[in-house]
Amino acid sequence: MHVSRKTFRVEWGDCDPANIVFFPQYLRWFDACTSAMFENAGVPLAALFKEEGIVGIPVVDLKVRFILPSRFGDELLVESKVLEWGRSSFLVEHRLLKDGLPAVECVATHVWTGPDPGNPERLKSRHVPKDVVEKFLF
Amino acid sequence: MHVSRKTFRVEWGDCDPANIVFFPQYLRWFDACTSAMFENAGVPLAALFKEEGIVGIPVVDLKVRFILPSRFGDELLVESKVLEWGRSSFLVEHRLLKDGLPAVECVATHVWTGPDPGNPERLKSRHVPKDVVEKFLF
Amino acid sequence: MHVSRKTFRVEWGDCDPANIVFFPQYLRWFDACTSAMFENAGVPLAALFKEEGIVGIPVVDLKVRFILPSRFGDELLVESKVLEWGRSSFLVEHRLLKDGLPAVECVATHVWTGPDPGNPERLKSRHVPKDVVEKFLF
Amino acid sequence: MHVSRKTFRVEWGDCDPANIVFFPQYLRWFDACTSAMFENAGVPLAALFKEEGIVGIPVVDLKVRFILPSRFGDELLVESKVLEWGRSSFLVEHRLLKDGLPAVECVATHVWTGPDPGNPERLKSRHVPKDVVEKFLF
Repeated sequence: MHVSRKTFRVEWGDCDPANIVFFPQYLRWFDACTSAMFENAGVPLAALFKEEGIVGIPVVDLKVRFILPSRFGDELLVESKVLEWGRSSFLVEHRLLKDGLPAVECVATHVWTGPDPGNPERLKSRHVPKDVVEKFLF
Repeated sequence: MHVSRKTFRVEWGDCDPANIVFFPQYLRWFDACTSAMFENAGVPLAALFKEEGIVGIPVVDLKVRFILPSRFGDELLVESKVLEWGRSSFLVEHRLLKDGLPAVECVATHVWTGPDPGNPERLKSRHVPKDVVEKFLF
Repeated sequence: MHVSRKTFRVEWGDCDPANIVFFPQYLRWFDACTSAMFENAGVPLAALFKEEGIVGIPVVDLKVRFILPSRFGDELLVESKVLEWGRSSFLVEHRLLKDGLPAVECVATHVWTGPDPGNPERLKSRHVPKDVVEKFLF
Repeated sequence: MHVSRKTFRVEWGDCDPANIVFFPQYLRWFDACTSAMFENAGVPLAALFKEEGIVGIPVVDLKVRFILPSRFGDELLVESKVLEWGRSSFLVEHRLLKDGLPAVECVATHVWTGPDPGNPERLKSRHVPKDVVEKFLF
């Protein structure tokens, strides 16, 4: 199973008046990590969306544990991997490390999503293409 | 138990290229709902933090289900309440409704947090003051 | 000339470790004020974009003066108006007031934008429809 | 004069329904570039703020021109430099390039800011330390 790694520097504007990262910012980072993971697997989402007529991979379920706070200037490492592939959904785990210690842990369920053929303004789940899943297996 | 209500209009910049709200934005709204809930209970956090020497009420655990997407211009209603008071933590439930239908459900665990007396740059949990809890009971 | 008014409460997550609003947040608010201004003029952008095949009204020029900082819990009032209509662009002025005092002043130039007929993935400026401009004159 | 360089990948959540970067996001990046510029000059802000009792370097004036839009997956390069040092303020120029072409240009005026000695909750401008300025000259 691929583990994808991405580093972040905590910026001033990521932090709140308690001088720690405001928690929704972690979710923005994790989403960027999911994109990087696909790119590292050889299937960059921007190209994939265009080719496959995919609208996005919205998150439908999210579980997050915030263990250690981070501050302006901290260097963070996120390790991301797909925990499980379903037919049209998949689970991504993100482990954020600060100085080698687990700081935030997240599991996000994404859904492979295209326009609803019956109503292009609506969204509809789609089967994850096999060749995408295979990129993550080898 | 107090139920606190707050409405939001989905703005252009809250949405992603799939034309739906980018999920971390919901967490920003829910955090604003928690602040509004305290204010509605008669204990505005900004004043409380100053009086009590509290640094913040960071989130340590988060569970979110995204049920229906929302789009630019949608009117959203969030109903928030404290599910449970612990000694230094408390659980807040947010139910986001769109046209009366559940669209996002969230439970966030917050911790009452002050500076660590031994090292003011560190954070330390504190007991939630009884008079704060009582404001939510009556 | 219509003056459109919108109020904001400064939220915890809008502020940085200096305990003041992180400046890009003002631009998010101003963008929401532009949307509200159109809605107050009777032409909500979400509907307009759909009817007219408009992709958006991106900002091409921005001038901002930050005069007074704002903090968690502050109530802000923004007064917005169109300063000038061009053929395909228009200037919007936002004046943000805190306790009646000017706190931030902004002039943003927006461009009426649709897909490029020659390449739907590209953007192209369009003439602002006369009936839209007229809504702001009366 | 130091030119500091920093690259960004445009993320999904940085973009709006027009599928281009939502403009306040550029300001978040530019602020991160200013921090990187100080670090590249050998004076990381996080450490500097602590040593010098500085609360921040808030922006008081901003001029931005948006020339070319950017999209999910684009690689951006920002070149940042101090245009001018005043007694307590300084001008930073950011030039954002996409495929070598100017895409966004920004000049931001920052103020060296500490707590007001007469009222620690208020902010007050301070002289920029000479040894900080000198780091940028050599």
